[in-house]
Amino acid sequence: MTNISDSLDSLIEELSSLPQIGRKTARRLAMFIIKQPREKIEKLSKSLLDVKDKIKFCKICCNITENEICKICSSEKRDRTVICIVEEPQDVLAIEKTNEYKGLYHVLHGRISPLDGIGPEDIKLKELLDRLNESGSPKIEELILALNPTVEGETTILYLQKLLKPLGIKVSRIARGLPVGSDIELADEVTLAKAIEGRIPC
Amino acid sequence: MTNISDSLDSLIEELSSLPQIGRKTARRLAMFIIKQPREKIEKLSKSLLDVKDKIKFCKICCNITENEICKICSSEKRDRTVICIVEEPQDVLAIEKTNEYKGLYHVLHGRISPLDGIGPEDIKLKELLDRLNESGSPKIEELILALNPTVEGETTILYLQKLLKPLGIKVSRIARGLPVGSDIELADEVTLAKAIEGRIPC
Repeated sequence: MTNISDSLDSLIEELSSLPQIGRKTARRLAMFIIKQPREKIEKLSKSLLDVKDKIKFCKICCNITENEICKICSSEKRDRTVICIVEEPQDVLAIEKTNEYKGLYHVLHGRISPLDGIGPEDIKLKELLDRLNESGSPKIEELILALNPTVEGETTILYLQKLLKPLGIKVSRIARGLPVGSDIELADEVTLAKAIEGRIPC
Repeated sequence: MTNISDSLDSLIEELSSLPQIGRKTARRLAMFIIKQPREKIEKLSKSLLDVKDKIKFCKICCNITENEICKICSSEKRDRTVICIVEEPQDVLAIEKTNEYKGLYHVLHGRISPLDGIGPEDIKLKELLDRLNESGSPKIEELILALNPTVEGETTILYLQKLLKPLGIKVSRIARGLPVGSDIELADEVTLAKAIEGRIPC
């Protein structure tokens, strides 16, 4: 409560409900906003609603898009025999930036996390199974699990492995190992163990 | 560029133009916004414009307010013989939180910073002088300079000292010293020197 103005207090309230924005940052942002020209804030305000109005989830891969089917799913250039399964839309952005992967995606919109009360039915698993069971051509040959190497990510991977086994499709997961440019001496034991375990012939 | 949606790109653009929000945080915020119910985002969007429409600068002290004259300037309970000069409205909030100061304020909305091209005419100095020269009663007896202990703050203090000297009003500055709960061993030399210089009898 700044005790200065209700509109200011309510803006600070709204801003600090956003992720990664604490009370002090919210206050600093609000002060910045007060000093900006109205047109700039109008633009920001409009952008917020625009995104809510225009962005939908792709009917095939559940990624975000402005159309029914996203650009990746509708592209002729992508390899339709591989699906990379990720937790969130931003993971698609990160993988696309590498320019290495040319297959399709499936966005789960979350990860299984019993502690947070998030079960398999709360993420887009049904959509994945429907997609795999569809008699589309070409046939899916590989599923790449690109989930975060966290407890929840691992839980989800275990669940997916069980779920996908009966389908007879090759399932792989992205490598855990040392980040490029890092130092073996400073690596944590688990990462180093996974890096050794996942060694590849050179 | 996410290459997914123009509305998303433009929201990320707008968000990352805010202070303390980099590109990655902007992207994370945008993804969060996509997943929120529309009413929540409508509220945020409205709050932004509300603040722009309702907040004005107090005609006396230049602090932010929803009225012509701010709550502090119009309060009967404040000591009208002391003015505390601060850089920004958030500094008023910080000082008010201490519950120690009962005088008035003057908000400069900036500091003199030749490197950034901000001169004395770019901050609310004219308003301060007008206020001091006004034949109001009671007479101002003390001006407390509560500017940040930075190069720019010091520059502004030097300028203010020269400017205010002819008026014959007592001018003081808030103490520089060790933060409460800190450690002499870990203090930087300049702070420690200022703490010794500014010692008070006990």
